[in-house]
Amino acid sequence: MTRPEITYAQAGVDIDAGGRAVELMKAAVARTRRPEVVGELGGFAALFELDLTRWRRPLLASTTDGVGTKIAVARALDRHDTIGLDLVAMVVDDLVVCGAEPLFVQDYLACDRVVPERVAAIVSGIAAGCAKAGAALVGGETAEHGDQLEPGAYDLAATAVGAVEADALLGPHRVRAGDAVVALASSGLHSNGYSLVRRVVRDLPLTTVPPELGRPLGEELLEPTRIYARDCLALAAATEVHAYAHVTGGGLAGNLARVLPPELDAVVDRATWTPPPVFGLLARLGPVARPELERTLNLGIGMVAVVPDGEAAVRLLADRDLLAWVAGEVVPGSGEVRLTGTHPVR
Amino acid sequence: MTRPEITYAQAGVDIDAGGRAVELMKAAVARTRRPEVVGELGGFAALFELDLTRWRRPLLASTTDGVGTKIAVARALDRHDTIGLDLVAMVVDDLVVCGAEPLFVQDYLACDRVVPERVAAIVSGIAAGCAKAGAALVGGETAEHGDQLEPGAYDLAATAVGAVEADALLGPHRVRAGDAVVALASSGLHSNGYSLVRRVVRDLPLTTVPPELGRPLGEELLEPTRIYARDCLALAAATEVHAYAHVTGGGLAGNLARVLPPELDAVVDRATWTPPPVFGLLARLGPVARPELERTLNLGIGMVAVVPDGEAAVRLLADRDLLAWVAGEVVPGSGEVRLTGTHPVR
Repeated sequence: MTRPEITYAQAGVDIDAGGRAVELMKAAVARTRRPEVVGELGGFAALFELDLTRWRRPLLASTTDGVGTKIAVARALDRHDTIGLDLVAMVVDDLVVCGAEPLFVQDYLACDRVVPERVAAIVSGIAAGCAKAGAALVGGETAEHGDQLEPGAYDLAATAVGAVEADALLGPHRVRAGDAVVALASSGLHSNGYSLVRRVVRDLPLTTVPPELGRPLGEELLEPTRIYARDCLALAAATEVHAYAHVTGGGLAGNLARVLPPELDAVVDRATWTPPPVFGLLARLGPVARPELERTLNLGIGMVAVVPDGEAAVRLLADRDLLAWVAGEVVPGSGEVRLTGTHPVR
Repeated sequence: MTRPEITYAQAGVDIDAGGRAVELMKAAVARTRRPEVVGELGGFAALFELDLTRWRRPLLASTTDGVGTKIAVARALDRHDTIGLDLVAMVVDDLVVCGAEPLFVQDYLACDRVVPERVAAIVSGIAAGCAKAGAALVGGETAEHGDQLEPGAYDLAATAVGAVEADALLGPHRVRAGDAVVALASSGLHSNGYSLVRRVVRDLPLTTVPPELGRPLGEELLEPTRIYARDCLALAAATEVHAYAHVTGGGLAGNLARVLPPELDAVVDRATWTPPPVFGLLARLGPVARPELERTLNLGIGMVAVVPDGEAAVRLLADRDLLAWVAGEVVPGSGEVRLTGTHPVR
């Protein structure tokens, strides 16, 4: 009996499609190159020279994250060129919290099947995010998991590596009573809490235009995450910064608490800002209780800076076209974040 | 009308289960700690001090990979404590190819739902792999994608970062005519080609005991990937090594070709080794043609060293209990790998 032979391609792995995807993404990836990158893509490992004329006592900082189920929104809208910006935002802005400069990024993309144009759109978005953050996209992996993912499904993760001088490390050890808590505006929902968000809007078509948004719901949900890395580095270079907190899962209080020393509290006044309309919309549609909303979503603040001079920080960020405001202060306490007051009614 | 409020937990994200998983994996992760690691797990970024009394002109090497659909085998057997070893093998042994010492690893685990014991088993396996490779497991992300993955499904990826002195970089630029091609034995299928492998055996229960294996098929398919990093570093420290090639997707020829300069060929003689029985079994069951098998699976060689003195390398590796043999040599040519001869009949 002769049976037909089985090949790797028949088993669901298309090596040629992978090659075409690489061709399509090449230019976008090349634009992220930094002078420290050694050699070309395609080696077993990516190489990056740490310039020791620049670094005295470098700590290598590293972070890994994904974009959660925001990918489901990208898939529903069949728009894949911005989810990579979200991915890079998640990892580089966790890096910059300790004062580290993002140096390079590696990405991981798992898909059911390599559609070269879609893979190239996703990775080009990652490259665009890297360019925004000043990091080189040095390598990555695109995995084809034929029978493990439903048609059209994919998942994304990335690791960012940066460096910070040991004596310039930011964090709780620098925070002092009297420091200002400066809020940096978010661009929208960013990339956390999408299991909740999608649950809330599941009966609404993404083409719906809610009056308070003035644009289709899908567009609002897919709005790319703001990338703060360069602004945060510029701020720390220009003025004294004690700590940053990247507002992701856990919300403002959960993340700000991570950079408080045990003997200090942060008091943040809700009256200092009005959350963008999408947050009110979700609260109303769910309904989602305010405390649940506050510990799951960013409510308009994507990054927090803890600084001795809040007004100076706000001005410096305004000069960089980034909306920021003094939202509270650090006081004696027990390592907790206290949210006070109520948001102004729009 | 009062509707019940929606919470993040109801939307499919269980923060408490995540916390329990972290508790369960903590000890295994702690055992991978190196003295250069700064601070504790749980910060926004992991920190690793690059000891500049040790490194003169360090190149940072980085790699990212997953384990492909070998996870489907782990799931079918409900055994999750070794797939992490496979994951670490994929990334650290891509690192060591250029001579880099693995310093630290970050992992990414996406699952439908955090089952603390299963997540802990997976991450403990990653930690065990890191310990074997001498790398610190400094951080990672466990993502819960409730409605995006089928029940029980998960995916894994990791990024490894290492360092190599610029003047000790291994690769094609060192390879010379007359060099020996030394084969390092694999432990089995390793972690590539599983879409093909699973396609071939899909009608066989994993409990089947094929006579030539002498153990259940499932056990053979889940055999952890050998981690060569420490052996490769020890070999390069003890004797001259020009290049390594990690035999993954693309097989022996595809990967060895990546470290050949354009004016040299490698001639590898199949008569120097007998592939382990699992490869013959797959060829017969498929059937899978020999060339397809050779470019998809490792056929018994998981790593190749290109060295001036092949016999010395074989002896040094034998002293480390690693089976190796001279499988061929480097000759003038055009950057190609030529497989000659036939494997001995067992």
